[in-house]
Amino acid sequence: MGRIVQKYGGSSVADAESIKRVARRIARSRADGNDVIIVISAMGDTTDELMDLALQVSPQPKSRELDMLLTTGERQSAALLAMALSDLGVDAVSYTGSQAGVITTPTHGNARIIDITPGRVEAALQQGNVAIVAGFQGVSQTTKDVTTLGRGASDTTAVALAAALGADYCEIYTDVDGVYTADPRIVPSARRITQVGYEDMMELAACGAKILHLRCVEYARRENVAVHVRSSFTDKPGTWVRAHEDISKDSTMEEAIITGVTHDRGEAKITIVGVPDQVGEAAAIFTAVAEKDINIDMIVQNVSRLSDVSTDISFTLPMSDGAKAIRALEEIKDRVGFREVLYDDQVGKVSAVGVGMRSHPGVTATFFAALAKEGVNLQMISTSEIRISVVVGVDDVDRAVRAAHTAFGLDATQEAVVYAGTGR
Amino acid sequence: MGRIVQKYGGSSVADAESIKRVARRIARSRADGNDVIIVISAMGDTTDELMDLALQVSPQPKSRELDMLLTTGERQSAALLAMALSDLGVDAVSYTGSQAGVITTPTHGNARIIDITPGRVEAALQQGNVAIVAGFQGVSQTTKDVTTLGRGASDTTAVALAAALGADYCEIYTDVDGVYTADPRIVPSARRITQVGYEDMMELAACGAKILHLRCVEYARRENVAVHVRSSFTDKPGTWVRAHEDISKDSTMEEAIITGVTHDRGEAKITIVGVPDQVGEAAAIFTAVAEKDINIDMIVQNVSRLSDVSTDISFTLPMSDGAKAIRALEEIKDRVGFREVLYDDQVGKVSAVGVGMRSHPGVTATFFAALAKEGVNLQMISTSEIRISVVVGVDDVDRAVRAAHTAFGLDATQEAVVYAGTGR
Repeated sequence: MGRIVQKYGGSSVADAESIKRVARRIARSRADGNDVIIVISAMGDTTDELMDLALQVSPQPKSRELDMLLTTGERQSAALLAMALSDLGVDAVSYTGSQAGVITTPTHGNARIIDITPGRVEAALQQGNVAIVAGFQGVSQTTKDVTTLGRGASDTTAVALAAALGADYCEIYTDVDGVYTADPRIVPSARRITQVGYEDMMELAACGAKILHLRCVEYARRENVAVHVRSSFTDKPGTWVRAHEDISKDSTMEEAIITGVTHDRGEAKITIVGVPDQVGEAAAIFTAVAEKDINIDMIVQNVSRLSDVSTDISFTLPMSDGAKAIRALEEIKDRVGFREVLYDDQVGKVSAVGVGMRSHPGVTATFFAALAKEGVNLQMISTSEIRISVVVGVDDVDRAVRAAHTAFGLDATQEAVVYAGTGR
Repeated sequence: MGRIVQKYGGSSVADAESIKRVARRIARSRADGNDVIIVISAMGDTTDELMDLALQVSPQPKSRELDMLLTTGERQSAALLAMALSDLGVDAVSYTGSQAGVITTPTHGNARIIDITPGRVEAALQQGNVAIVAGFQGVSQTTKDVTTLGRGASDTTAVALAAALGADYCEIYTDVDGVYTADPRIVPSARRITQVGYEDMMELAACGAKILHLRCVEYARRENVAVHVRSSFTDKPGTWVRAHEDISKDSTMEEAIITGVTHDRGEAKITIVGVPDQVGEAAAIFTAVAEKDINIDMIVQNVSRLSDVSTDISFTLPMSDGAKAIRALEEIKDRVGFREVLYDDQVGKVSAVGVGMRSHPGVTATFFAALAKEGVNLQMISTSEIRISVVVGVDDVDRAVRAAHTAFGLDATQEAVVYAGTGR
């Protein structure tokens, strides 16, 4: 007896049969006496298909209209799920993001939730309904237009609703059965993590773990919502994401120094050679890049190999932003007076994450020694209080992940069970 | 320079290319300096496909959720059209029925418009935008749920918006080029009607002319909105529907006694044999049928062939309601005490419509003589001030229509031009 938010991704509702299967699972939660709120994604490839249609009509679709178009996908799956539940004798009502009171900023395509006014959802629950909310969408507080929330947004919708409705916890159903100490496709001995703190999960998400989006974890931490990431294809428990203190209380198992090893092949490295060694040059460079809405990840500055009155600056960024960044830098080349711009997308980032490293100074040494033993060359290094990241050649990524996983004692005796599906 | 509402049906926006073609037509209207409001249907077969999906999930989908599902079709085409217009340099904004202020009764699947509060649409027009409104949908005044408006609903949305926004007229774009004196597939010499009064158009719509739905014409008459029915595949003028007085003013051409001859093969005839000839029996019968939400069309009562203390009652109804009506009648059979129920769906209704017949008493005689000459047997007869309808055997329908069309002098010297498409 409690109140639960459950979120189902597109692969869990890919067709009519899947929708009915999800409905049966929800009916069981309801039969246990819980208030149940569902957040749902669009069916299978619906969003991609709608995007294709938009591009057929206009090469650069207006973002307001793109949001109007794409949000129909979640509305369809929400309505269909409500029908399927009614068919099982479970009262259910579907709501658009706007009807559910998901109030956002007006930025189409990447709006942020600024408030939840869940009056209609609360009323539906009081009347004994399962409330189904279309994920990924909201309504702008200022323009009253329909907005979408950007990547990983349905997870964030679920966590935000859990907070606003005072739910006991939020279940994120996906096609894998939890968070692993490393990608099991690379490290067969990776273990499922039973519980993980918000801080660790944020670093894991930021460093390549695809299972939960960073913004969702940030929201969960801010509102202290316990999140249970699990598979919609089994009844096995998955990974609980919650405050570090709550984990320590009920588990003595999870005392590993390092929580997990992640990797990310989606970044590229740009090196600006021969930047004059004067105050303000770096600022000029990063201002030019920031103006193009590009998120920089790691930055390293060295004395230039060219001369000792200039420096080389390297940074990493999402590969998809590479061309845009190069253009922005070429534009300011003469003004700033650097020599040249080098672009390398044959790189990968490998990170070790764990709050345990705060009190264990030897972690960096262990990490670097493990990589050195494998002959992996480190191109860039960046650290936070609970994370060490290195950029290596793309061909070294797998070996580096495996070496680190073993060195930190994360290998399981048994091979991890991985479920079908492509992740998200 | 004026203000125009244009409505495009599903066949006009069946794919990306069609949407771009419609966008170019709208751009021309806008370039002429008009305020332009667009009402749009779902793309091609979208509504049918969504309905199929619903039936896969639930054999009897909840009507509230069906409305949530089906309304996404028009939202998609509205957003896509806005993108296509923006691509042509025409500012355009799409709105859901709810956003456009289409306020309805709460009856899902068959709601009626009770008010239009077009504040956002008006503001969009003031700012120089083309306003695009998703047809077929509104929002319930009481429940705040999304509703659909039933058959022919996008046309009604267009007329209602034209009235609320004070538009000069409302253009209904479809795949035929206007209203004809008879179905050109049956009568090759049928003529396109240049102008027709609301009363005639209402009778034509009620008696089988598929081009405009009755509810739309009723709305146009009540609000005195001039409607121009025309093809989206040509620039030729179509048929103007307006007040009879306005027609007489600017045209001496349209003085035919009969405006058109229609037919309807979608009805069935039920005969209740041996109803006791007592007060209240007919009321009991039609109450039973009405309680099942079945619309009765024609009713005829005769002395029974069985005895002179009982009567036979025949009525026609939509064929799709036949089984339901039979069940309802069998349930009351013993209580009312009639002998038996006969069902016949091998019938068709042929009607002659025209306000001219008010002042020409010979019309009925001409009609019946023409049918008699063709050897057509009349099963039922019903008349209004401006219409004569007969029920005949289904195999006699085509001959009856052609005979009446000729007898009333409606045949054109040239064969009518009919455009591709299946009608609606």
